[in-house]
Amino acid sequence: MTRNNLFYAQSGGVTAVINASACGVIETARQHRDKIGKVYAGLNGIVGALNEELIDTNKETAKSIAALRWTPAGAFGSCRYKLRSYAENPKEYERLIDVFRAHNIRYFLYNGGGDSQDTANKVSQLSLEMGFPITCIGVPKTVDNDLPITDNSPGFGSVAKYVAVSIREAGLDVASMCESSTKIFVMEVMGRHAGWIAGAAGLASEQEGEAPHIILFPEIPFNRVKFLRKVNTCVKKFGYCAIVVSEGAQNKDGSFLAATGGTDAFGHAQLGGVAPYIANMIKDELGYKYHWAVADYLQRAARHIASAIDVEQAYAVGKAAVEFSLKGKNSVMPVIVRGNGKKYTWHIGEAKLSDVANVEKVMPRDYISRDGFQITDKARNYFSPLIQGEDYPPFKNGIPQYTRLKKVLEKKKLKKWKAS
Amino acid sequence: MTRNNLFYAQSGGVTAVINASACGVIETARQHRDKIGKVYAGLNGIVGALNEELIDTNKETAKSIAALRWTPAGAFGSCRYKLRSYAENPKEYERLIDVFRAHNIRYFLYNGGGDSQDTANKVSQLSLEMGFPITCIGVPKTVDNDLPITDNSPGFGSVAKYVAVSIREAGLDVASMCESSTKIFVMEVMGRHAGWIAGAAGLASEQEGEAPHIILFPEIPFNRVKFLRKVNTCVKKFGYCAIVVSEGAQNKDGSFLAATGGTDAFGHAQLGGVAPYIANMIKDELGYKYHWAVADYLQRAARHIASAIDVEQAYAVGKAAVEFSLKGKNSVMPVIVRGNGKKYTWHIGEAKLSDVANVEKVMPRDYISRDGFQITDKARNYFSPLIQGEDYPPFKNGIPQYTRLKKVLEKKKLKKWKAS
Repeated sequence: MTRNNLFYAQSGGVTAVINASACGVIETARQHRDKIGKVYAGLNGIVGALNEELIDTNKETAKSIAALRWTPAGAFGSCRYKLRSYAENPKEYERLIDVFRAHNIRYFLYNGGGDSQDTANKVSQLSLEMGFPITCIGVPKTVDNDLPITDNSPGFGSVAKYVAVSIREAGLDVASMCESSTKIFVMEVMGRHAGWIAGAAGLASEQEGEAPHIILFPEIPFNRVKFLRKVNTCVKKFGYCAIVVSEGAQNKDGSFLAATGGTDAFGHAQLGGVAPYIANMIKDELGYKYHWAVADYLQRAARHIASAIDVEQAYAVGKAAVEFSLKGKNSVMPVIVRGNGKKYTWHIGEAKLSDVANVEKVMPRDYISRDGFQITDKARNYFSPLIQGEDYPPFKNGIPQYTRLKKVLEKKKLKKWKAS
Repeated sequence: MTRNNLFYAQSGGVTAVINASACGVIETARQHRDKIGKVYAGLNGIVGALNEELIDTNKETAKSIAALRWTPAGAFGSCRYKLRSYAENPKEYERLIDVFRAHNIRYFLYNGGGDSQDTANKVSQLSLEMGFPITCIGVPKTVDNDLPITDNSPGFGSVAKYVAVSIREAGLDVASMCESSTKIFVMEVMGRHAGWIAGAAGLASEQEGEAPHIILFPEIPFNRVKFLRKVNTCVKKFGYCAIVVSEGAQNKDGSFLAATGGTDAFGHAQLGGVAPYIANMIKDELGYKYHWAVADYLQRAARHIASAIDVEQAYAVGKAAVEFSLKGKNSVMPVIVRGNGKKYTWHIGEAKLSDVANVEKVMPRDYISRDGFQITDKARNYFSPLIQGEDYPPFKNGIPQYTRLKKVLEKKKLKKWKAS
């Protein structure tokens, strides 16, 4: 009997721990060689499947695969490419299934956010109709933490830890200099529609007066007057004011405070630059000297300061996805379920892809303080376990040693694909 | 016999390891209680001496002082305040010496860059003339690495490590996404007049094609045509281009690139930052999608990823400054001397403050590749030892635990100081 092959793809914005999920997938699949033949990884995500560019992960050593656990970003390449609906572009889906059929791929593990789980769900349905049933399992991933059902999304804990550590450190810097120099520090963080990342930065403030003093959430419409008053009060009281602003911070009318103008492949507005916008506003209105930082990709790639629990969970969802496949489950995604006890515990649960697809989870209002500028204790209790523990990568010559894969492509069997 | 007291002050922009120098000073002084009475630290640097705001470090526990070793920024407060010349404002110098006399301070240890060493030197001379001789010892510090004589400046190794680690991680991020998304990543780093920090980022590129592909140094006048050609070649060859730009990058006429006055996608005047300026230039000319990051204070405050050798050297110069004082040396500064062997070794040497004051050391031309966009092997050999080793702070609840000092002020003995 021919063993069935497995196809794994990374999708959308990468994280510090998405490769830990890949590691979980590949290491677990290798333990079931009786049932799973080759594990293919899409070169640059789903585009690799369309182009029949399938990385044969069997060609990578156990050591290289193990090192995925501590390697940030997408080792096989990811993409911003959303399949259109079947009605709009049936050929794309047919092509996918043709490629899977040609390479005897019966398992499709899609490592991404809500959009990707929607795609995986559709592929599963269509494969049935097309007489080549494919088991489709989602593997959750997003720094934005906006996936529903799962208590948190792998990738989020590490960016949360990065922003909390960074604003604590930069806050100390500003505090040391504020008497005669910079009084305002603004740090811009990711989170297009949800303030999870910005909120997590609030963990850095453990005692009164500690940074960050103000957090600007996408969930709370920006109120210029109230904000400037708060900044001023803060400077008078503590000598300085450290602000964390979400890239998704919005005006009352829902427009972003600062946008670069472009849109990405999903039609989302491409953001950036709200930190200098806010800093200049303060300078203009209050006259304080400022500095600002935009961490951008540094925050989501910062494997050197990853959360240990995040790494563990990212690996676990990859492992669970393979186990789900082997148990005959389909169109589901492993999720993180938080225990009810006071001490943080978690286990793997499952969610239907149809319930996950295209739903965005925003910060509950009671995670944000009444004045809209801080997080509540309820939020702290939620965030804190997710940044626990350090999981340092190995270093050589002072620099983290991240895996370099061979990425050997499987021989093509089909004609070249032309996107229509 | 009354023991003489010591005054220590932090000056200018803080670093991830300036408190390690403070730790070296205080711990060493505490070992010589027979000769050194109290160690005072200036609240907010030299301004604390002028205002007679002297932190009595004896009031801090040994544990708090030990924790300075892993606490970033200036724990006692620093300042941007340069004493004018004695001819211009003699009262400032006289006030300093009055305060020192009132508190029996016979040792003045000034932890800062070139400006500060100039001040320390003058205080030493004047104190002699004023009949209250004060031993003045410099303690080197600057992330910019532009102090002369010393092989490197404490503070630099850690920011060097931060930028090398960050561009490696962000580079992997961009590499994973470049097929269908961002192709250009620009990271702005500090270094207004010297490209040391930008150059150190080059350590991240260990194999052909690895980030950073281009470094823009203040030492090399910006050539737009040559730069854009290089960017394009890079994208064609590797699929993406990761750029590190020094905040001090300059046009041929010596003006800063960032001050050139670019506009954003909406035609608004650029809000500052050479990274967005460069990124927009590439977008306009070559059409590539970009992301950019400005690490700003995050880079110099990043104690969580400090270089172990930097921490060690920062401590050592603090310790040596006290030992120099006790040996009767004056108007000198401990420096780092690199051994001549192939294996990196270092020891503490000494330099005259008069030789250190107000001299800026830029990158030698042969540290920069012929085309001006990369570092040479000579530079690598210089930089590499300075980022060796990790020296992680202790964490609690997922966040680094940095010391919180009591900062108890000594009772004032003089009238209030009014800056003239």
